[in-house]
Amino acid sequence: MTYRAGRHFLQIPGPTNVPDRVLRAMDMPTIDHRGPDFQAMAKRVLTGIRRVFKTTNPVVIYPGSGTGAWEAALVNTLSPGDLVLMYESGHFASLWKKLAERLGLRTEFIAGDWRHGADAAAIGERLKADAAHEIKAVCVVHNETSTGCVSPISDIRKAIDAAGHPALFLVDTISSLASIDYRHDEWGVDVTVAGSQKGLMLPPGLSFNALSDKAIAAQAGAKMPRSYWAWDEMLAMNPNGFFPSTPATNLLYGLDAALEMLDEEGLENVFARHQRHAAATRAAVEAWGLEVLCADPAQHSGALTAVLMPDGKGADALRKTILENFDMSLGAGLSKLADRIFRIGHLGDYNDLTLVGTLGGVEMGLKLAGVKHRSGGVDAAMAILAAAAPAEARQAAE
Amino acid sequence: MTYRAGRHFLQIPGPTNVPDRVLRAMDMPTIDHRGPDFQAMAKRVLTGIRRVFKTTNPVVIYPGSGTGAWEAALVNTLSPGDLVLMYESGHFASLWKKLAERLGLRTEFIAGDWRHGADAAAIGERLKADAAHEIKAVCVVHNETSTGCVSPISDIRKAIDAAGHPALFLVDTISSLASIDYRHDEWGVDVTVAGSQKGLMLPPGLSFNALSDKAIAAQAGAKMPRSYWAWDEMLAMNPNGFFPSTPATNLLYGLDAALEMLDEEGLENVFARHQRHAAATRAAVEAWGLEVLCADPAQHSGALTAVLMPDGKGADALRKTILENFDMSLGAGLSKLADRIFRIGHLGDYNDLTLVGTLGGVEMGLKLAGVKHRSGGVDAAMAILAAAAPAEARQAAE
Amino acid sequence: MTYRAGRHFLQIPGPTNVPDRVLRAMDMPTIDHRGPDFQAMAKRVLTGIRRVFKTTNPVVIYPGSGTGAWEAALVNTLSPGDLVLMYESGHFASLWKKLAERLGLRTEFIAGDWRHGADAAAIGERLKADAAHEIKAVCVVHNETSTGCVSPISDIRKAIDAAGHPALFLVDTISSLASIDYRHDEWGVDVTVAGSQKGLMLPPGLSFNALSDKAIAAQAGAKMPRSYWAWDEMLAMNPNGFFPSTPATNLLYGLDAALEMLDEEGLENVFARHQRHAAATRAAVEAWGLEVLCADPAQHSGALTAVLMPDGKGADALRKTILENFDMSLGAGLSKLADRIFRIGHLGDYNDLTLVGTLGGVEMGLKLAGVKHRSGGVDAAMAILAAAAPAEARQAAE
Amino acid sequence: MTYRAGRHFLQIPGPTNVPDRVLRAMDMPTIDHRGPDFQAMAKRVLTGIRRVFKTTNPVVIYPGSGTGAWEAALVNTLSPGDLVLMYESGHFASLWKKLAERLGLRTEFIAGDWRHGADAAAIGERLKADAAHEIKAVCVVHNETSTGCVSPISDIRKAIDAAGHPALFLVDTISSLASIDYRHDEWGVDVTVAGSQKGLMLPPGLSFNALSDKAIAAQAGAKMPRSYWAWDEMLAMNPNGFFPSTPATNLLYGLDAALEMLDEEGLENVFARHQRHAAATRAAVEAWGLEVLCADPAQHSGALTAVLMPDGKGADALRKTILENFDMSLGAGLSKLADRIFRIGHLGDYNDLTLVGTLGGVEMGLKLAGVKHRSGGVDAAMAILAAAAPAEARQAAE
Repeated sequence: MTYRAGRHFLQIPGPTNVPDRVLRAMDMPTIDHRGPDFQAMAKRVLTGIRRVFKTTNPVVIYPGSGTGAWEAALVNTLSPGDLVLMYESGHFASLWKKLAERLGLRTEFIAGDWRHGADAAAIGERLKADAAHEIKAVCVVHNETSTGCVSPISDIRKAIDAAGHPALFLVDTISSLASIDYRHDEWGVDVTVAGSQKGLMLPPGLSFNALSDKAIAAQAGAKMPRSYWAWDEMLAMNPNGFFPSTPATNLLYGLDAALEMLDEEGLENVFARHQRHAAATRAAVEAWGLEVLCADPAQHSGALTAVLMPDGKGADALRKTILENFDMSLGAGLSKLADRIFRIGHLGDYNDLTLVGTLGGVEMGLKLAGVKHRSGGVDAAMAILAAAAPAEARQAAE
Repeated sequence: MTYRAGRHFLQIPGPTNVPDRVLRAMDMPTIDHRGPDFQAMAKRVLTGIRRVFKTTNPVVIYPGSGTGAWEAALVNTLSPGDLVLMYESGHFASLWKKLAERLGLRTEFIAGDWRHGADAAAIGERLKADAAHEIKAVCVVHNETSTGCVSPISDIRKAIDAAGHPALFLVDTISSLASIDYRHDEWGVDVTVAGSQKGLMLPPGLSFNALSDKAIAAQAGAKMPRSYWAWDEMLAMNPNGFFPSTPATNLLYGLDAALEMLDEEGLENVFARHQRHAAATRAAVEAWGLEVLCADPAQHSGALTAVLMPDGKGADALRKTILENFDMSLGAGLSKLADRIFRIGHLGDYNDLTLVGTLGGVEMGLKLAGVKHRSGGVDAAMAILAAAAPAEARQAAE
Repeated sequence: MTYRAGRHFLQIPGPTNVPDRVLRAMDMPTIDHRGPDFQAMAKRVLTGIRRVFKTTNPVVIYPGSGTGAWEAALVNTLSPGDLVLMYESGHFASLWKKLAERLGLRTEFIAGDWRHGADAAAIGERLKADAAHEIKAVCVVHNETSTGCVSPISDIRKAIDAAGHPALFLVDTISSLASIDYRHDEWGVDVTVAGSQKGLMLPPGLSFNALSDKAIAAQAGAKMPRSYWAWDEMLAMNPNGFFPSTPATNLLYGLDAALEMLDEEGLENVFARHQRHAAATRAAVEAWGLEVLCADPAQHSGALTAVLMPDGKGADALRKTILENFDMSLGAGLSKLADRIFRIGHLGDYNDLTLVGTLGGVEMGLKLAGVKHRSGGVDAAMAILAAAAPAEARQAAE
Repeated sequence: MTYRAGRHFLQIPGPTNVPDRVLRAMDMPTIDHRGPDFQAMAKRVLTGIRRVFKTTNPVVIYPGSGTGAWEAALVNTLSPGDLVLMYESGHFASLWKKLAERLGLRTEFIAGDWRHGADAAAIGERLKADAAHEIKAVCVVHNETSTGCVSPISDIRKAIDAAGHPALFLVDTISSLASIDYRHDEWGVDVTVAGSQKGLMLPPGLSFNALSDKAIAAQAGAKMPRSYWAWDEMLAMNPNGFFPSTPATNLLYGLDAALEMLDEEGLENVFARHQRHAAATRAAVEAWGLEVLCADPAQHSGALTAVLMPDGKGADALRKTILENFDMSLGAGLSKLADRIFRIGHLGDYNDLTLVGTLGGVEMGLKLAGVKHRSGGVDAAMAILAAAAPAEARQAAE
């Protein structure tokens, strides 16, 4: 091992930087998951997590990755051969589709260009056309981690309703929950899928399904085989603070701490912070003369910014240059975007000066890697941050 | 919160006491799971874990609990409606059976009395009778955590072979791996199921499938729907140090440390230590005039000892007395053993003096709870430990 | 490094076992010791520590060991050549005397037999004889860590008063504070000396002087050169939450946590716990047929028990046997008690079952080392602990 | 407690950012400081620390702050009333002088302007004039933390030699050791004073005296009273891995880790990194149109940069603005520099992107606080860093 001084900059769009307070909370002896101390902690966590999803309904917590929660959302609500309408927002929507197919569902993909979120109107039209209600579920990625575009969940809900279609509405918030405004109940989502390793500021290893009454009711008719991911025993045991199989105790300690921290900062402040950092990042990209991948300003992500390489290639060489020279990890372009973009994560436990360092690393990396760009990106970002800062200082003073 | 002085005694049969070195290894910043540092660590862990299973074949590591690894073993190798032969060694065998049925498999249960491990002869006979080879897999729990009886895996392998039956052999080692001698390759097991939270000395949250070539080949014909638990992408990506979906990075840090520690102590020394502690515990039980649940001395578990209440009830009141007075958690009797037994875990990161404290807590608890017993259990255990100790001291001196 | 399974038993009479909560509190980023966050923490700690000393006066906190706090007590109150009356309670009283002499003070030692605490009457007589008030300070060790005898501080105060002598009264509570009842104000002590690594449950590295008004006033005439240990700047800056030189920030984090834990358990409960463990330990010693060093039952320490070897030697071989076979550290006999005694620490963050393990380790060690003794010590201790336990359980229930 | 997202930027000139690896090393159970595990660790640390001072002589390690090590250097080598020649490099030189006087030494201060390091020629002249050799020691601060000026230790040694003067040479490296090139043996220093909380990357709480043979010999004639700080027992016991009084065990764990990390990075690489960051910082200051306090470019510190406020005041308001808006701590101006300067620490565990964030925070703060300046500081710094980076990348590739 050779020590490299200073902290690594983990600026992929998740897993995110885990705060010390969360790491230290996890760094405590594992306890009996059938005992009273665990029970009290679990009740607190199972209640607190609802606030983050903005739901009053149950949230199911799995030991597992976000991929598992994708699977859980499908197997608890659907039957083999059911048709699922999905929207090709990018790489992760494509992976979810592939997963659905492996499980024996039929899928229909509304084509997207990987530069926009899901199109509510297109979804509405397709549902209207489905007079026989063959489509059993609509699956959308809220914040497409591979592109940095946000889908308009509330609009899609309205489109489904306008179509008078009974399909379930399943939404992936893996890279948006606790970073970008999200409202499970208000927006009428049936299953919200999430993971621990992004806005929740935890290491990976926990994943989530937030439910609606309709989703809970759908279990009865859902014939997909399921056991580990089955909600029924979770819903039966969780109210008492226990789990059907051994829970990931120490990650739950971390979640307990993270929920407390989100409460302290305030979810709306968390969202505003992410928007500010995203705006500053885009200002830097613009100053560099580069292009943000997400083509619709109304859909720019608060969690990450994907940047197009000016020559359409070289992103991986750039990322390597930055990693080796400045000890910073950035996100790669995925599948058809491979080497064409790089992604800057600015989500989770993060602040202004770390963003300045991050953008500085990108700007110096562009220079070292010989990527055509203008300097001044960091300056442009600082202008945004400095303009936003006094308000916060005033608030603190008041 | 009210502080209770001293360390809690976590003497359930898992999760076990996590060593500081493992907790501190987990208490480090999460890194990019697509970057070179992760890759080096993952390769080391994926190689090292094989030594613990005593296999040269791949071991698949999931973010998930042991229950998930049960599911994984089935869905990767079987098809809907396949018949699985299981052996009723106790509560966990029953849970695995229930899981198989929820997934759409047919199960056949060879009845057991919850006081013995699986009967190799009975399995052999049943397989001989299955001339049509309808049975596709034999599922056995190596160390039945609910009873403290060990099934003779090597004998069962021989019985399968003697029957000339092609069924796959799936074994649960959740509470035995890295505590009791186990040999995946030598014993001809096709899938070994394990979890992180017992002999591996980690918190819960990782689970494992060790594979045979036959198991790997079985994927091709296995029609159970699967995605999260599917081995194929794991087997494709793991050799390069990566995972198809986000791995539980910080638990892998812990596994990395735990593997190093098991290597330092030496697996055979680890097994001998568990046998010594089990023998000392049984000596205490005998001195108390109580009865060990496991009725066959050849099958006594090195990982836990289940003790029958002399009046056939009151185990939960006893456990409560011990928890409240002496801050020690013991395992409860499960399902039909509820309140009839208590279970003493003596596995994982554990030593002689902690066992003396544990048995002292039980002995004082028996007294306080008014359970009929003789004193002298701790003395009997100390006689065993003291007799064993000098050898170790001599070894250290050499 | 070779891993040795399970936790080391650190049963020397300090440093003591540091609770996870304290270690984790220390395991946080160091902050600006001139900033507002530090200030808030320091004020909390500087106030809270007074409760432990049972004083309303200032307590000075040094980065340093207990030895430094001995020096501080002397240099802030005395002048070169001053005569100090000390009592030979054991090794640590002798070290304090040697330190005083190195600093240029004159000392007078009332001889003791290392089996009793200080004799209040003898001190009183000597002071009465000092009509010229040549003696400027009386120095006594409250809990003599080398012998396990407690000096009657309140009685000594009365003897000083009865003699009408103006000498300052300086008391070492390094191994008693937060373990054994101690009352700085009520007992009229002028300077109480303490360290972090015993009852306060911290690692070594902080030490303390609790002051009286008379001690504070003594600074004016005290001509011993002093700077690092000087109280004046501490007393000037501490009320505002700051220190004259860089404080040991992370140890203060730990102290902050430890004070919170002592408040949660309640100091009187802490004292009762130590007395219970000391009584159980002495019961074990008696059952072994061995002799406790401290000859006066009224002076038996709640923090440690020193045990005489039956043949007057072999204690170090015994301790080595126990360390190698059972991974437990015990305290050695010091200077003239070398090899003649071993010392069992039962102070700090400690509970019944750990004591049972500790005494089990001693009993097995006596056997392995071939020390003449009777068995039954652990049983005798358990009888004490079990008898005491129900009360605690009842309290918890109420 | 209200959570503030992201990591605090601790950019005072020490205590510095403690790396996770050091914090986690400290976060382990305290062990018996008289036992074999401690002994092995202590020997390793006591040997390793010599490499950092570049000495083959003993280094004494105290539980205590740097102030204590100042005191130790004086009391082990001097006698009451001895004359000490000191150089007024700034605030910390003044504090050391004050400390010497409190201890009963006579001091003579060569006046400085707080914008330069010590003047070797002036020291040489004063020594030449001291034909009677009344001056017993020359005390110099290597890196004056209050000003950011480095004194030419090697030149001063030559000046002392040229004067043929037998005075001891005592040097404070509290904020330079392990950050700026320093050579105890080669430069002929008799006592080097250091602390744990700067380049050694530890929390405060340990301090150091590196010795020369001459310093060791000086003990014999030195009549200052001493006990805690006395070298004699340290020098007697340390070779065997033990300490005369209880050492700060957990801080020594941290030191063990820090020494390993410094070895991994390589001391010369550490120095080069500090010089690069200092150069980048000065480039930013110049771009802002502000002035670096240190007036001699040859004496610019690699560890910190002090910046003059353009209007001669307002530094504290600026620091407050930065702390409240950007969660960064900067160093204040001390005594006669109060409010006139602010100090940017860039030492210890630190890297390029954190420096970019730091300078970004200063630049935004200057703007928010209305301090007259030009923008472009961060850009200027990035130009330096980017120019330096490729070399490093090439080295890594080789």
